[in-house]
Amino acid sequence: MKQDIVARISALRDAMRGAGVNAVIIPQTDPHQGEYIADHWQVRRWFSGFTGSAGALVATLDKAFVWADSRYWLQAAAQLEGTGIGVMEEGKPEVPAITQWLCSELKPGEKVGIDGMVFSLDATESLEKELAAKGIGLTVDFTPADTLWTDRPAMPLDKIFVHDEKYAGESSSSKIAKVLADAKSQGADAAFISDLAEVAWTLNIRSRDVESNPVATAFLYLSPVGSTLFVEARKLTPEVSAYLESNSVTTAPYDSVKEFLGALPATTKVLINGAQNAGAVAAALGSRIVRGTSPVAMLKGCKNEVQVQGVRDAMVRDGVALVYSFMEIEDAIATGKKITELDVADILTKHRSAQPLYFDQSFDTIAGFGPHGAIVHYSATPATSVELKPDNLLLVDSGANYLDGTTDITRTITLGNTTPQQRRDFTLVMKGHIALASAVYPEGTRGGQLDTLARINLWKEGLSYLHGTGHGVGHFLNVHEGPQRIHITENPNAMRPGMITSDEPGLYRSGEYGIRCENLILTVPAMTTEFGRFLKFEVLTLFPFDLKLFDTEIMTDNEIEWVNNYHATVRERLLPALEPEAQQWLKTKTATLSR
Amino acid sequence: MKQDIVARISALRDAMRGAGVNAVIIPQTDPHQGEYIADHWQVRRWFSGFTGSAGALVATLDKAFVWADSRYWLQAAAQLEGTGIGVMEEGKPEVPAITQWLCSELKPGEKVGIDGMVFSLDATESLEKELAAKGIGLTVDFTPADTLWTDRPAMPLDKIFVHDEKYAGESSSSKIAKVLADAKSQGADAAFISDLAEVAWTLNIRSRDVESNPVATAFLYLSPVGSTLFVEARKLTPEVSAYLESNSVTTAPYDSVKEFLGALPATTKVLINGAQNAGAVAAALGSRIVRGTSPVAMLKGCKNEVQVQGVRDAMVRDGVALVYSFMEIEDAIATGKKITELDVADILTKHRSAQPLYFDQSFDTIAGFGPHGAIVHYSATPATSVELKPDNLLLVDSGANYLDGTTDITRTITLGNTTPQQRRDFTLVMKGHIALASAVYPEGTRGGQLDTLARINLWKEGLSYLHGTGHGVGHFLNVHEGPQRIHITENPNAMRPGMITSDEPGLYRSGEYGIRCENLILTVPAMTTEFGRFLKFEVLTLFPFDLKLFDTEIMTDNEIEWVNNYHATVRERLLPALEPEAQQWLKTKTATLSR
Repeated sequence: MKQDIVARISALRDAMRGAGVNAVIIPQTDPHQGEYIADHWQVRRWFSGFTGSAGALVATLDKAFVWADSRYWLQAAAQLEGTGIGVMEEGKPEVPAITQWLCSELKPGEKVGIDGMVFSLDATESLEKELAAKGIGLTVDFTPADTLWTDRPAMPLDKIFVHDEKYAGESSSSKIAKVLADAKSQGADAAFISDLAEVAWTLNIRSRDVESNPVATAFLYLSPVGSTLFVEARKLTPEVSAYLESNSVTTAPYDSVKEFLGALPATTKVLINGAQNAGAVAAALGSRIVRGTSPVAMLKGCKNEVQVQGVRDAMVRDGVALVYSFMEIEDAIATGKKITELDVADILTKHRSAQPLYFDQSFDTIAGFGPHGAIVHYSATPATSVELKPDNLLLVDSGANYLDGTTDITRTITLGNTTPQQRRDFTLVMKGHIALASAVYPEGTRGGQLDTLARINLWKEGLSYLHGTGHGVGHFLNVHEGPQRIHITENPNAMRPGMITSDEPGLYRSGEYGIRCENLILTVPAMTTEFGRFLKFEVLTLFPFDLKLFDTEIMTDNEIEWVNNYHATVRERLLPALEPEAQQWLKTKTATLSR
Repeated sequence: MKQDIVARISALRDAMRGAGVNAVIIPQTDPHQGEYIADHWQVRRWFSGFTGSAGALVATLDKAFVWADSRYWLQAAAQLEGTGIGVMEEGKPEVPAITQWLCSELKPGEKVGIDGMVFSLDATESLEKELAAKGIGLTVDFTPADTLWTDRPAMPLDKIFVHDEKYAGESSSSKIAKVLADAKSQGADAAFISDLAEVAWTLNIRSRDVESNPVATAFLYLSPVGSTLFVEARKLTPEVSAYLESNSVTTAPYDSVKEFLGALPATTKVLINGAQNAGAVAAALGSRIVRGTSPVAMLKGCKNEVQVQGVRDAMVRDGVALVYSFMEIEDAIATGKKITELDVADILTKHRSAQPLYFDQSFDTIAGFGPHGAIVHYSATPATSVELKPDNLLLVDSGANYLDGTTDITRTITLGNTTPQQRRDFTLVMKGHIALASAVYPEGTRGGQLDTLARINLWKEGLSYLHGTGHGVGHFLNVHEGPQRIHITENPNAMRPGMITSDEPGLYRSGEYGIRCENLILTVPAMTTEFGRFLKFEVLTLFPFDLKLFDTEIMTDNEIEWVNNYHATVRERLLPALEPEAQQWLKTKTATLSR
């Protein structure tokens, strides 16, 4: 394998010489700027052998490096050893940014090559500008994988299917009309959509093209005189083609998109978004582009009543599957049966997939026992998966896509006796979780304003977590979506009724254990007073928090009451759907918490 | 007077015709983009007769309007009646923005005239761009007041004096070196400073040019080969001239600044800031400009140890003055002596000005009794000043500049019996005040992240206040400064050690009363843990909150403890500086709060 990589880099350099480029950047992205990408676009992995989910390969004619973030420093070093490719440990103060490094390595007049379809317009522009300041050029159609990667996997070819309006709650034609009205308000006649979740939402279609993301690989051009879906013909069924036609959507080959855009009438104004659409798409549109915000993001983010009720229903089924899963895990520990982190993932999938309307997991289960729980992005592999023991905490972050909604839940449980530090840590995290879930806030409030509620109790003890507190969640779609976010960094999008967001503060003690407590919460109206309209959250997720981990001494009466009220709701919603033994288990797990 | 205005507008239109401009914008600003402006630049007031502290006059050849925000709708209507100038009630959905209105009134090819010295570069550029989109031109040297306003007040001519290093804590030459190092890091050789507080801080000079702001009207050009202060020669004393010379600062006439900048070597790179520097300054510099952030703002914002100790000392003197002032107010109420809102301001000034190192008030005292307290920007005038009665709340927001520091405090007290709603409202405000004052937060935290701590308890009851929670405070300088801010809107500047910020949540019940509780708080290190470095606040202000207004039923033990600890500090610091009778008064006012 390592020798393959050496040969591939050598061939890459031949291609660079042939194309007259002195350096190349191969990012871990696809033409849709997605979080997860299909095998077809794993170009960086093929050239470098590095399998991390992020990090670009950058090569000049005599040097090559992968820029890896701290999650991947060790893995990249191991996978790249002996390939002639070094690791740039991104995040260390002495490690330059990619463009900075290129500016120091290249001479004025030299050129950097990229594939303009896998760089966003924003990224392309800033790269071009920074290089130009040093007199370095940019070639945006350098695609060496097209010729060198001879056994490249095909584009994803799973069939597309229609997401029934009884789950989506709104017809595609209604959505298209809203998107075009928004585009018009931004000064455009048409809109071009590259984001796969946005395409899927707009047309009410789904597929299985990206792991855990029920999307179809396609571009969508929307206009009042007819719309076009750019998609591999083999992904279409007669039923789907007829459905699209009934919504005035014709189909065209996936690869014809640039040609199509370049042939639009010169006066057509097409709305694109610099972060989601590729530089090559903008180049094809030329002077037709209107840069603006995605009309879909906000519409998709605010779920309608049918979607919300679907998620409420899905949460009951998900809660039932969780009850049976955690019963099985606890039983294994109690009876001394061997059970590993990987088994936990399998058990969850087994019980969830038995539920009606189950489609797939919504992301790879994170089951981290003891010290593994402290690795925020931990995903057990056969090599790392450890056996669970009755002496530490287990963190389980998992979720599923059902046809009527998407779930995402994290629970941290003890498998044996707890320590005072564990209980204190857990309770400080829960105080933040509860403060956010109980918040009331005026219309217009942004997630960044609410984020501190989840953190302040940890901060007061000199504790902290570095990930976000909440991400938007799709409806039978990607588990991570925008436009809102609850995070220490600023995001201008206010919380609006219908938005589903996670509430997941945590605490990670390296080498000891990790704690994260996550529910999904729905923004709903709270009240209207002389001071304006106020919003609050409705908790959607239904599963108890581990009673053994609460330190009631540091909780307020209101916090204890919140836990008891939440557990009462969990009982009320789940009990009717459980077998007697499971009912008894749930009653014990939701017993009254008191001092 | 109204006839004068009619004549002035008529003369203005003659000047417009003479200069070939079809519309003029006369804003309420000066060449330094300050919050308060001297009489010399009250051009909008002279042309319109409207005396509000904000709002531009816009005139075409046949229409004229003042854009007034909601504070000034009534006042503007009264002052403009009969002048032919209408009021645009800014903030109403149907009222267009100025540029929008101009675009609808003017034809392509017509021109808008402004004085480029009183529009910031950012404002000039955005105006030019919006007008250009409609084919309308912009003339940036239209200054009709220069010829029409024949009895225009002179530039402020108060003498400049040196702010002793024993108070400033750092020499001007040290500050200049830091500013130039920052400018260099932004790619500039020199820096140009228009902001009056920044000029005063950099050179350790003060004057009395702007009401309540101890600044001198001047521009400052800093460069490694010598610096220049552009200032009216009559403001200089031999001592100040010698002092400036000793810091390699020469002086030049205030009016020569554009000529000077235009004559700099073409290769000199001068750092300016688009929000603080005028469009005309940028035009004079031409291609020499480097746009960046003010190097002074962050340096000035983070007070050194000498400054901090000065403020702590000034707070004792301010606290003593407050004790004698509130004793006098309460005594008047108790003895039935007539006392008005304006008297409150006079009493405060009398006691403060008796203190050592007193210089001036730091802003006009706001003393609002009952319903007047609910008017956030209320400032009593002889026409509005009401008598205080023992049946409602009194809100007093006041402050002073001492040579060793600036104070700003708001207290809300009851003058008689309290109602449950008053106590509940006051306590909800105090819960926010305490939550912010007690916050601990990681380095890098911005004020916008902390703002919610002050609001969440109000929001939960459907209550809210619309002003910011905290502004930066200068050191013997302007009471409002940046770069940090605690506000619902995003501000990218993190809280840093040495920053002094106000903590002033409030609640305003229209027609009933207003509540605001304000202390100044200093950012200081809290602790360093494996999770990083944490900061917290030290409370600087020393004066009790009204014990009669607390509703301990809705307070946590921690909140009650905070009040008692704070009052213990107030007692400890102020008692030694008080007469026996005042000591007794303070002891009563700081008695232990309990359920």
